[in-house]
Amino acid sequence: MQAVTPSIIHNFNAGPSILPKEVMEQAAAAILNFNNSGLSILELGHRTPEFTAVMEEAKALVKELMKLDDHHQVLFLHGGASTQFMQVPMNLLDQKETAAYADTGVWSSKAIKEAKLFGKVDIVCSSKEKNYNCIPTDFAVPNDAKYFHITTNNTIYGTQWQRIPQTSNVMVADMSSDILSRELDFNAFGLIYAGAQKNIGPAGVNLLVVNEQILGKTKRNLPTMMDYRNHIAEGSMLNTPPVFAVYVCLLTLRWLKALGGVAAIEKINNEKAALLYDEIDSNDLFTTQVVKKDRSKMNVCFTMKDSHLEIPFLEYAKANGIVGIKGHRLAGGFRASLYNAMPISSVQYLVDLMRNFKQSAA
Amino acid sequence: MQAVTPSIIHNFNAGPSILPKEVMEQAAAAILNFNNSGLSILELGHRTPEFTAVMEEAKALVKELMKLDDHHQVLFLHGGASTQFMQVPMNLLDQKETAAYADTGVWSSKAIKEAKLFGKVDIVCSSKEKNYNCIPTDFAVPNDAKYFHITTNNTIYGTQWQRIPQTSNVMVADMSSDILSRELDFNAFGLIYAGAQKNIGPAGVNLLVVNEQILGKTKRNLPTMMDYRNHIAEGSMLNTPPVFAVYVCLLTLRWLKALGGVAAIEKINNEKAALLYDEIDSNDLFTTQVVKKDRSKMNVCFTMKDSHLEIPFLEYAKANGIVGIKGHRLAGGFRASLYNAMPISSVQYLVDLMRNFKQSAA
Repeated sequence: MQAVTPSIIHNFNAGPSILPKEVMEQAAAAILNFNNSGLSILELGHRTPEFTAVMEEAKALVKELMKLDDHHQVLFLHGGASTQFMQVPMNLLDQKETAAYADTGVWSSKAIKEAKLFGKVDIVCSSKEKNYNCIPTDFAVPNDAKYFHITTNNTIYGTQWQRIPQTSNVMVADMSSDILSRELDFNAFGLIYAGAQKNIGPAGVNLLVVNEQILGKTKRNLPTMMDYRNHIAEGSMLNTPPVFAVYVCLLTLRWLKALGGVAAIEKINNEKAALLYDEIDSNDLFTTQVVKKDRSKMNVCFTMKDSHLEIPFLEYAKANGIVGIKGHRLAGGFRASLYNAMPISSVQYLVDLMRNFKQSAA
Repeated sequence: MQAVTPSIIHNFNAGPSILPKEVMEQAAAAILNFNNSGLSILELGHRTPEFTAVMEEAKALVKELMKLDDHHQVLFLHGGASTQFMQVPMNLLDQKETAAYADTGVWSSKAIKEAKLFGKVDIVCSSKEKNYNCIPTDFAVPNDAKYFHITTNNTIYGTQWQRIPQTSNVMVADMSSDILSRELDFNAFGLIYAGAQKNIGPAGVNLLVVNEQILGKTKRNLPTMMDYRNHIAEGSMLNTPPVFAVYVCLLTLRWLKALGGVAAIEKINNEKAALLYDEIDSNDLFTTQVVKKDRSKMNVCFTMKDSHLEIPFLEYAKANGIVGIKGHRLAGGFRASLYNAMPISSVQYLVDLMRNFKQSAA
C-alpha cells in the first residue's frame, strides 16, 4: 500500500479503461448542469428533445466514423457483449442451421457456448492448442454456414486479426476491444458488436452495428428485447437506454472525430504499439509469447525471461504511477492496453521504466 | 422556447428522474478523481479492489434498507426492467406451467406479453376496462400458479397497490417506480426487480432481489446471461457491470440510509403526496381520474376540469421552472412524480403555482 498517490496515473487497464481527459471533464460538468439546462444529465428524461439529440448525434457519428452505408443500423444496447453471445444466434440462426465460429480465446469460447443453445456450431479453426498465442490460418468456412463469427481482437492473449477473412458468409464480429481503432471495411460485416468500455465510452452500454438485410430470416419467436428489429424500429430507445453511458460515448466519438477520425487514430495506435513491441523485442529482460504477425495493437501481452523479476517490475511500475499492467491470470506476465485514449506519452513513459529497470537490474 | 433558464429547476420527470443534489455532486467529483485514486470512476477496472468494495457496499445497503434475510440475494443487472419481463418467466416458469399476472397498466401488459412466450399466463385480474384508474379487488390466484406477478406502482396511470395481496404463491413484483419508497415485508417476495432510474440511481442498471430458494426449479436450458444463479455465483459481476451506474446507486443508498432509511422516507413521501392530492381535491380547476384508495404516492396524475386550461397551465408551470409534469400520452393531463429525491419544498412550490393559477384565472 503506497502512502502517496503519484501525481500522474498512467492507466493501462484492459477495460473499463482510460478515456480522454476532456471527455471526463465534460462528463463531470454535464452531471452538474447539462447543456446549461439547469438539470443533470443523470435526471434527464430519455424522451426529452435534449436526450433524443444526444442519441441521434451519437448514432450519426458512428455511421460517419465507420463510413456505414444505409443498410447498416447503429444501436446502443444494454447488456454488454456477453448478452450478444446469445442474442446474435437467437436472431440469426435457426435450430437446425449451422453457424461457423473461429475460436481464438476466452471470449470466442464463450460466444460458441451460447450459440450451441440456438443451433449447430462449426468451429472452423482454433488456436486453443497453441494457448491462443496466434490467429489461425488455413481454414475454410462452409458456404452454407449461416454466418461466420470472429473476435477481432483477443484482450486476454494479445492477438488480433490483422486481415479480416474474406468469405461469402455473413460476417459477425465481436469488436469489443478494437472497434474504431483501425480502418476496416465495416460495411463488409453483417453484424458488429462491442462493449463500450474500451474504445467508445464507459461500462454499461454496448454498440451494435447491423445490416438490417440479414434480419428476419429465422423462424424463432423472439422476446421483445431480444429482437434487433424492435430496437431499430424504436431508434435504440425500445426501453430506457443507459442515458449517461450513451452521452459519454457521444463525447468520446466527438473527440475521435476532432482528432481526425479512424485513419488518424490508427496511425497513432500503430506508433504506440511499435514503441512498446520494439522495447519488448530489444530489452533483454522482456519477451512475448504472441506470434509476431498476430500481435494485438490494443493489448500488448508480455512476460519477463526471468519470471522472478515480474513481481519486482510490477511493484516498480506501480510505485511510478503505472496502473493495470498485470496480465490476465490465464496469460500471466503483463498486459498493457493501448486503447484509443491512451496517449503516446504514457507508452513512452512505460518504455522508459522498462529501460530503467533493465539498467538497475544489470 | 424560453430565453432565460429559471435559476432553480423543479424536476418532476417520471424517469429518468431527480436524484439528491449531494449525489450529483459526489458523482461529478468521482468522475474527475475517484476516492483520491487519481483515476476517474469511468476508467476504473471492475475487478479492482476499489470497485469490488463499491459493489459489495451497494448490495449490503440494499439488504440493510430492505431488511432482507439471508435467502434473498441482491443483484445489479444490465437490461432494465424490460429485460426482466422475459428473464423472470425464463427462470421461473416451465413451458407447460401457469403463472398468474395482475394487469394494472402498460408495464403489466408488457410483462404478460413476454411471459406468454415461456409458459401459460393466467390474468387473474385487470383494471383495463376502467382505463387502469384503479387496482383490482376481488380476485383469486390459483394455488398451482407458479408465481403471481404484480406491478406495485403504475407510473403512467398513477395507481399503486397500497396493500400487497397475500397469497400462497411465490410473489414477483416489478417495483421500478416505488422501490425503497415505503416499508413493505420485502422478504415475503420471491423476486423483486426495479429499473434504477426512479428511486435508486441513474438509467442503465436494474436492481434485482431474489430468494435463491425459488431458483433452479425449471427444466429450461438457460443462456448464461439469463440464469440468475450465474449472476449470484459471480457476485453480480458475471460480466462487466455498469460501473458508474452502480456507483451512483451506492451514493443514493448512502443518502437514504443517512436520512433514516425506508421508514423515514416513507413519512416524507406521505407528506408530499398528501400536500399535492389535497390541492387537487380542493382547487376547483383540478381533478383526478384515479380512484382515491389506489392513488400512487410516487406518480400523481391529474387533469383540469376545463381541458382548455391545460396548455396555459403547463406553460405557466414551465415558465416558472417546473419540468416534466406533462402526463403520459395514454393518460393525458399532468403527472408529477414525487420520487424519494423530490424535496417537499418543490411540491409546495408546485402547489403554490396551482393556487396562483386559480387566482389569476378567476
